[in-house]
Amino acid sequence: WGKITSPIKDLASDAKKLAKDDPRRVIHALKVGLAITIVSLFYYFDHLYDGFGVNAMWAVMTVVVVFEFSVGATLGRSVNRGISTLLAGGLGFGAHHLANLSGENFEPVFLGLFVFIIAGFVTFLRFIPKLKARYDYGLLIFILTFCLISVSGYRDDEVLNMAHKRLSTVLIGGSTALAICILVCPVWAGEDLHNRVANNIDKLGTFLEGFGGEYFKTSGSENKEKKAAMEGYKSVLSTKSTDETLANFAKWEPRYGRFKYRHPWDQYLKIEAHVQECAYRIDALNTHLNSELKISNEIREKLQEPCKKVSMECGMALKELASTIDSMTTTPNVDIHTANAKSTAKILKNMLKLSSWKDNDNNLDLPEIIQVAGVVSLLLEILNCTLKIGDSVSE
Amino acid sequence: WGKITSPIKDLASDAKKLAKDDPRRVIHALKVGLAITIVSLFYYFDHLYDGFGVNAMWAVMTVVVVFEFSVGATLGRSVNRGISTLLAGGLGFGAHHLANLSGENFEPVFLGLFVFIIAGFVTFLRFIPKLKARYDYGLLIFILTFCLISVSGYRDDEVLNMAHKRLSTVLIGGSTALAICILVCPVWAGEDLHNRVANNIDKLGTFLEGFGGEYFKTSGSENKEKKAAMEGYKSVLSTKSTDETLANFAKWEPRYGRFKYRHPWDQYLKIEAHVQECAYRIDALNTHLNSELKISNEIREKLQEPCKKVSMECGMALKELASTIDSMTTTPNVDIHTANAKSTAKILKNMLKLSSWKDNDNNLDLPEIIQVAGVVSLLLEILNCTLKIGDSVSE
Repeated sequence: WGKITSPIKDLASDAKKLAKDDPRRVIHALKVGLAITIVSLFYYFDHLYDGFGVNAMWAVMTVVVVFEFSVGATLGRSVNRGISTLLAGGLGFGAHHLANLSGENFEPVFLGLFVFIIAGFVTFLRFIPKLKARYDYGLLIFILTFCLISVSGYRDDEVLNMAHKRLSTVLIGGSTALAICILVCPVWAGEDLHNRVANNIDKLGTFLEGFGGEYFKTSGSENKEKKAAMEGYKSVLSTKSTDETLANFAKWEPRYGRFKYRHPWDQYLKIEAHVQECAYRIDALNTHLNSELKISNEIREKLQEPCKKVSMECGMALKELASTIDSMTTTPNVDIHTANAKSTAKILKNMLKLSSWKDNDNNLDLPEIIQVAGVVSLLLEILNCTLKIGDSVSE
Repeated sequence: WGKITSPIKDLASDAKKLAKDDPRRVIHALKVGLAITIVSLFYYFDHLYDGFGVNAMWAVMTVVVVFEFSVGATLGRSVNRGISTLLAGGLGFGAHHLANLSGENFEPVFLGLFVFIIAGFVTFLRFIPKLKARYDYGLLIFILTFCLISVSGYRDDEVLNMAHKRLSTVLIGGSTALAICILVCPVWAGEDLHNRVANNIDKLGTFLEGFGGEYFKTSGSENKEKKAAMEGYKSVLSTKSTDETLANFAKWEPRYGRFKYRHPWDQYLKIEAHVQECAYRIDALNTHLNSELKISNEIREKLQEPCKKVSMECGMALKELASTIDSMTTTPNVDIHTANAKSTAKILKNMLKLSSWKDNDNNLDLPEIIQVAGVVSLLLEILNCTLKIGDSVSE
């Protein structure tokens, strides 16, 4: 019995967490329920008065498959479905008519041939990345509608009537879904992407702000909460595919709020590429944080301050960049922090060049220096990434 | 005019490349064409004899939406669709019956309530990651079938008849799709995942084998071909989401060829996690490769050999691991290479500890050492990753 109840309990606690993390999910579920109820009742009453007949169910189907979490995704699917149904309906009617002309015996042969060619060709088109990203669903619906219309086996006028009814019900379903999606607490993919980018940069900033203190700390005390906050950067490592999906959805969205139509969504992807690069470096830094090697007092004394400062200033610059994106305004603070980081990095480099190391060369342990040097070189690279992020944000 | 033709030309050349890269895509398109033609003709002739009536179109729909590139994906969608149709059909019939009992006036109210609750609840379930990964499509079909059956507005016996016909046609469509998917040149998601993992490890190996020579090279000559091969590791950086999708598909697949049923697909994901970690380090190494800093002869003389050796041995170990995975046999060569790499790493560490640096300390440039030290510490980390990959492969 426990075998059945325990996974259900797990699911319930997962569900609770999901609802808490993002209450928009619950609202989304209610919105879908509402939209489906509306078209279902339309279907129910239509049946009583025999308006669209069996075709009315296409309205229900459209809402179920078209209604997605964000406005962009819903709009993309609706437009895909509407246009595909129209085009494939026309082409299907043409094929049906053509096959009809060839006489009863050859009709199935021609129809089979048409269906084979169209289905095969369009299926192959779905592999092309450019088409797949934005029109995958439309291509699928194209195949479906073409087959259902062309092979239906009705007379020409019946087919026209059917295609017409189907298109109308798809429009009814699609517009219901869109109306509820946009009017009731809309979720904009573009806004999500925007916040996500700002959030990711902020996470990197948090790590860098904390890194110096953590790396050079003397006592062995663990601050678990701080460590967990610092490890937030890990989600940035694999952010790419979600970003791309969101950017594709965002492109479908009309102008709203602070975002202009044709907002440069692709620029976000460029920023994220730099952010991700920076995250890789931070991941390497994190390994140093967990290494066992103790740092001698001498090295600590010399390098602690500049290393801490570079890391801290980079972190602060990133946090400023995050809030710059968030508020869509520019602040001079970013430049101040990066300038500070740059000058400290210069000092750090010079410090290593100086012969200040030679006097007590005897107790100098090179592996230790190398360890710290690895950290330094990563920090310098992170500074570079930070500058790149800054550039791409200001674009 | 050029504005219209040039994107079409682009698409055509994309398509050509896709077909060349993986001819299975063309075969897939032909398979889909064949499957859809078969069920379309079934639909056509069924209409003539009025067997399943309008319900026959569900066979066509099922094939169109269920037929995916790999066997696992197709099987997953078919099973999802079949079971969901069955369950939702039963539940929908129950709801319909219940609403019927409540009398004509209250019927739409009850139906609306049922639909709202089920649609909202199931939509929310789709957010739960565990369910989303494997049953997302089934949950969607559940909502759809439940609405169409419960709200249909027919009499009980008509509804039963309809549900029965719909299930039969879904089965006909699903089994046609499955038969063609499995019998004609099947594409196994599990095999793809397997090859992908081996391939990714191989790419890392290629980079490491080439790295030593490239980093310490004296002439400025560029070997573009080699460089391109080395940069192959970049695709490994963002491999995670595709891996997860493939693993999910693979779990649906029955036993075939060299893979047992319940082959440990999750183990592949663990290996890939280590591979990805290693790829991040390699990405950091690659930055060093592109840096402007010249290496002095003294450092080159001292560090060239051990650095080259560690990199080379790691690369060879990874390549051995890749072919181990590929052939599913174990070779002792991996251990030999990792042992070599480990002992050289020890020498490298010792070398840095030795006071061999002190005599000509005067012309020793610390930034340069730091640069090289960064490389060394990355190499040591990569060695660690390699060992982890080795462990997880042998599991």
